[in-house]
Amino acid sequence: MRQLNLEPLGRDLFVGRSGRGEGTLFGGMVAAQAVVAAGRTVTERTLHSLHGYFLRPGQHGVPIRFVVNRIRDGRTFATRTVVAHQAGEAIFNLTASFTQPEEGIAHQDPMPSDVPGPGGLPDWEDLRAVLLGNPSQRRPDGPLEVRVCDPDSPDPDVKLPARRRVWMRPRGTLPDDPLLHAALLVFASDRTLLRTAARPHGLTWRLRIGASLDHAVWLHRPARFDDWLLYAAESPVAHAARALLLGAMYTRDGTRIASVAQEGLLRV
Amino acid sequence: MRQLNLEPLGRDLFVGRSGRGEGTLFGGMVAAQAVVAAGRTVTERTLHSLHGYFLRPGQHGVPIRFVVNRIRDGRTFATRTVVAHQAGEAIFNLTASFTQPEEGIAHQDPMPSDVPGPGGLPDWEDLRAVLLGNPSQRRPDGPLEVRVCDPDSPDPDVKLPARRRVWMRPRGTLPDDPLLHAALLVFASDRTLLRTAARPHGLTWRLRIGASLDHAVWLHRPARFDDWLLYAAESPVAHAARALLLGAMYTRDGTRIASVAQEGLLRV
Repeated sequence: MRQLNLEPLGRDLFVGRSGRGEGTLFGGMVAAQAVVAAGRTVTERTLHSLHGYFLRPGQHGVPIRFVVNRIRDGRTFATRTVVAHQAGEAIFNLTASFTQPEEGIAHQDPMPSDVPGPGGLPDWEDLRAVLLGNPSQRRPDGPLEVRVCDPDSPDPDVKLPARRRVWMRPRGTLPDDPLLHAALLVFASDRTLLRTAARPHGLTWRLRIGASLDHAVWLHRPARFDDWLLYAAESPVAHAARALLLGAMYTRDGTRIASVAQEGLLRV
Repeated sequence: MRQLNLEPLGRDLFVGRSGRGEGTLFGGMVAAQAVVAAGRTVTERTLHSLHGYFLRPGQHGVPIRFVVNRIRDGRTFATRTVVAHQAGEAIFNLTASFTQPEEGIAHQDPMPSDVPGPGGLPDWEDLRAVLLGNPSQRRPDGPLEVRVCDPDSPDPDVKLPARRRVWMRPRGTLPDDPLLHAALLVFASDRTLLRTAARPHGLTWRLRIGASLDHAVWLHRPARFDDWLLYAAESPVAHAARALLLGAMYTRDGTRIASVAQEGLLRV
């Protein structure tokens, strides 16, 4: 993913490309780039959490400046804030925390047991083109391959649970840089998420339904993204057009490696 | 709660009292004060979300300065960052978002159905004193009354699920200021939470077990805190001494009014 290679312009200042595309920038890419900017100012620690707010829609074709603030370098934890600017306006702000591995307590709820493996499941982009009513307008492949366990229905009268599971893996092999693995996980964590909250409401895919307001990710282990991950998401609550989404990422052997929370605006 | 009455020192600068007490400052109080600081710079909008990081332990008896940055005043949303300083060092940073009410989609998972009402349940502080092995050292009542549905066990061999439900209500009546209701909800959202993740590990209450690392709250509706709320928390995952906690707050009629996410360090 070339866009994760930020250009350093100073000790704590980086520039990223916003690439080409339709509509506004994909927030997950801006978040992933901000993670790279933060991580390039940290040594000997790996990302374990981030909290960000999407402030304004980002535009394609306009460079993004990432300004990092080293707000704490503690014994175990390092904390960074990053503000992403386009054309002089802040579009995204992030706080990210990095830590060193340590031994300690561990527990986890099991991975959902009723999930088919990725082989044979439909591709997200193929499904999307069908749901949009125009299979010939399938978008080109992105950096992730996404397979869908619980497809949406083309029939708006079908109300589905506000839950969805997808399998994701990178196309190609990532460099052996833990920060890039973490950044691509963050990118993935914003994919397919928001529409999960639309499933009980029978909203057609032809509508642009909304926007992510915030985004939080916790990496419970040092990030590796070499193989299929199961991303299980649900929206336990929505009110006044704002939906909360919670997600969990599991390796194929059932280890929960990441958790996600996001609030999104779903305007019909 | 006197500590929520911040003293304005300038347009975007406030000072709060840290009060007296044992150990380090309760993070929920600092977060609640930061919410008040942010909210005093916003008009016609109410808090709907916040994301904060605890950077350093706060100290009792030292004033806290809250510096607000008005990072966005949009058509619908207003976003603020707040940094809380004590003795010249940042102890907490917060981003908070405020919005106007609007009509829109709504759904929610039901409130847990197997929960007894608050009447007749044991008091959190009474239980705490018993679990510490010294009922005579019960702490004085705080601003909240807390009743426990799922008490911990004094026996470290008893491993309990990483789930807990408590009922909470303010002692006395809050002023009719929505910002103070929101701030007290944020205060409440950090109460009883972290130890939920210790329940599967039989950790004794005599140990100081850890510290909150971050904290996020989503208020799905304009906050009111006049009556009992059910706070249902769980820790779906922990690894390398860091536990994720997720919480949901319900009114007595089953309406989910708030959701909470926190990562905490649990060192034994």
